[in-house]
Amino acid sequence: MTGLDVTASGHEKLRIDVTIAATSTAHAEEIVEQLRGIEGVTLGKVSDRTFLMHLGGKIEMASKHPIRNRDDLSMIYTPGVARVCMAIAENPEDARRLTIKRNSVAVVTDGSAVLGLGNIGPKAALPVMEGKAALFKRFAGIDAWPICLDTQDTDAIVEIVKAIAPGFAGINLEDISAPRCFEIEARLREALDIPVFHDDQHGTAIVVLAALTNALRVVGKGIGDVRVVMSGAGAAGTAILKLLIAAGVKHAVVADIHGVVHAGREDLVDAPADSPLRWIADNTNPEGVTGTLKEAVVGADVFIGVSAPNLLGAEDVAAMAEDAIVFALANPDPEVDPAAARQTAAVVATGRSDFPNQINNVLVFPGVFRGLLDAQSRTVNTEMMLAAASALADVVTEDELNPNYIIPSVFNDKVAGAVAGAVRNAAKAAGAGA
Amino acid sequence: MTGLDVTASGHEKLRIDVTIAATSTAHAEEIVEQLRGIEGVTLGKVSDRTFLMHLGGKIEMASKHPIRNRDDLSMIYTPGVARVCMAIAENPEDARRLTIKRNSVAVVTDGSAVLGLGNIGPKAALPVMEGKAALFKRFAGIDAWPICLDTQDTDAIVEIVKAIAPGFAGINLEDISAPRCFEIEARLREALDIPVFHDDQHGTAIVVLAALTNALRVVGKGIGDVRVVMSGAGAAGTAILKLLIAAGVKHAVVADIHGVVHAGREDLVDAPADSPLRWIADNTNPEGVTGTLKEAVVGADVFIGVSAPNLLGAEDVAAMAEDAIVFALANPDPEVDPAAARQTAAVVATGRSDFPNQINNVLVFPGVFRGLLDAQSRTVNTEMMLAAASALADVVTEDELNPNYIIPSVFNDKVAGAVAGAVRNAAKAAGAGA
Repeated sequence: MTGLDVTASGHEKLRIDVTIAATSTAHAEEIVEQLRGIEGVTLGKVSDRTFLMHLGGKIEMASKHPIRNRDDLSMIYTPGVARVCMAIAENPEDARRLTIKRNSVAVVTDGSAVLGLGNIGPKAALPVMEGKAALFKRFAGIDAWPICLDTQDTDAIVEIVKAIAPGFAGINLEDISAPRCFEIEARLREALDIPVFHDDQHGTAIVVLAALTNALRVVGKGIGDVRVVMSGAGAAGTAILKLLIAAGVKHAVVADIHGVVHAGREDLVDAPADSPLRWIADNTNPEGVTGTLKEAVVGADVFIGVSAPNLLGAEDVAAMAEDAIVFALANPDPEVDPAAARQTAAVVATGRSDFPNQINNVLVFPGVFRGLLDAQSRTVNTEMMLAAASALADVVTEDELNPNYIIPSVFNDKVAGAVAGAVRNAAKAAGAGA
Repeated sequence: MTGLDVTASGHEKLRIDVTIAATSTAHAEEIVEQLRGIEGVTLGKVSDRTFLMHLGGKIEMASKHPIRNRDDLSMIYTPGVARVCMAIAENPEDARRLTIKRNSVAVVTDGSAVLGLGNIGPKAALPVMEGKAALFKRFAGIDAWPICLDTQDTDAIVEIVKAIAPGFAGINLEDISAPRCFEIEARLREALDIPVFHDDQHGTAIVVLAALTNALRVVGKGIGDVRVVMSGAGAAGTAILKLLIAAGVKHAVVADIHGVVHAGREDLVDAPADSPLRWIADNTNPEGVTGTLKEAVVGADVFIGVSAPNLLGAEDVAAMAEDAIVFALANPDPEVDPAAARQTAAVVATGRSDFPNQINNVLVFPGVFRGLLDAQSRTVNTEMMLAAASALADVVTEDELNPNYIIPSVFNDKVAGAVAGAVRNAAKAAGAGA
């Protein structure tokens, strides 16, 4: 106990603020339970460091210029601002020069698939979006603002994001559930002249490709030769698969909750031609593998899980090919216990910060948007994402590369600049700039 | 000339950055014209202090907490943030405690009526919205972010603002043209549980009422006794009229471009019952005055113009009642030359900063929103606006009050706090808090 403050006192009762250093969230909960059990004690609000940090929100708006006097006011606001407005009215492209547009990104969510918490809605999603905005600034100097939408209707979301686009140079879609996220992103990319990037899909895909690139370097296998088995056909899984194929993966098999995806599977025979699962069936599994995930991983070189906890055991990893690579990314509990996987696999990565090789989107989205904004890019495409993955992989030098270090730390200060430079160059090469 | 920098040099030509201190915009334009006329000179980009201040925009996003290490990251973002999200999912009202919502205002425009510039669109409106956001912070510590909409459809705007509301504690509608602004505001107020305030209407109305309150004190007339003639039945005019009536004005006459508004006027006979002009006809002009604005002002105690330049001459002001009050607010050129009006009027106010008694919304909107946010108000109503006007008027003490000082300066540091306190108390009295 590090503090006891009496904050209200009377003859009948005392109100006391108690400050306690706990060793973990579980420990804190235990203390709270014990306090609650004491006769005569009524427990008020319980806070912790994390909650205290969130009080009043984590981000703010700041003015770049002081407004000290009439002269400042007349330049920042009326009447001086009118000439700036007229310049943009005459040449709308000047908005990228004379307004916040050039460096602003909207972080848009409908709260339908927040972290691993599910459909918790727009208000409950806001702390994540604020955190994302803070990370955009910290790692790439970008001004992001959260836009949490009180609708989960696909058409409405598309119309809203189209409408708010003039003030932003990029749209980061966040935590929107599949399959709606695919259609929303595709329609917005078609409609807008600024890049639209669903981080849960492409951020994850880029980090996975970077990590896989280095893992393959560690084991000395070629990306076109390995057999890849994926678990999960949601937003992240589909995007990873597409980017891996673009990067040269030729032998991929995907399993979802119903087992391995193949063209003859019952739920796929009548699936519409543009359904995401249909795309997977048409573009993977050339050998026509059927059955369960456990059956599919036998002999596989690479396992990538973006699905659910504890689907595989140590014996499944042992049944993979020699020098197996295991990315078990389900959070907080991976598809296979990483300690168990490491008994036989050559390289193991997870989404957790308490194991080596953390696959973390923070490595990607700040740099990707920095590059897009610097190039004033009107779009984001596969070439730019491949360039980002390659640049991220190359931050780990040949000397540094080893099975426990295939991906740099999020605090490695070379990461964002390397990713941004690669994306900027790819955008310029594609002629995507404004 | 204060600087000459050669920024590119070759055998054929030199590029030189020329810095010049001009006495005015007109002087600067003259210099530019002269330079353009010199043979052999090609003029490049011309900038000035105001444009330089706008480069890259005037506002930014800032993180309230440093992100130095893994520990910071795990509280601001995953995994720590998840517990905060779940707390809000369980109790949505906690969003006002644990997120930016409590202090955030969306400054929403469709760019349809920007300053006096007209329908210049969302991108060209952005510098004004940025300036507004900067003023919100400077005068009331509020985090405002511009939302410039690429649609001018009433239904669409209502749907969009409803959808983005979860992340904000208030909506400031800005520079949306009449009559659409009336319907948009009314429908949003009906739909949302946060206050919606169209500053062009109510901000202006509150300052005008405050100024009129003090002008009447100067001349010793009662608000229920004076004959008020208004020019302009747009957004600002209608709102001013409604607030004046709520404050006790009994004898008001409104003129628009077609002359005095009365129930028998040709364009009003068939007007729908809910049209703004119909409301004016039904709630003003009890004596059934007809004719022109010039005819109506004869004998009037108060003239309030929110319309067009140079509608009245010195002779019209001279024809008003003794101790006349003239608020000529058209910008940049008032309805009557203030110098001419002062020959006979007792009190003259304009929208300009280079005359005494500037009627400026900056006096109102920061404090109004500060009060609404502090009360966690779900709405904004006439009582709160009357309280704001009264508090603003009272910032000018009896000792200070005189014909050239009926309204405080925008840099008077008592203003925002006084307005905020009055609005907060009115909101609490109305039980409007969350």
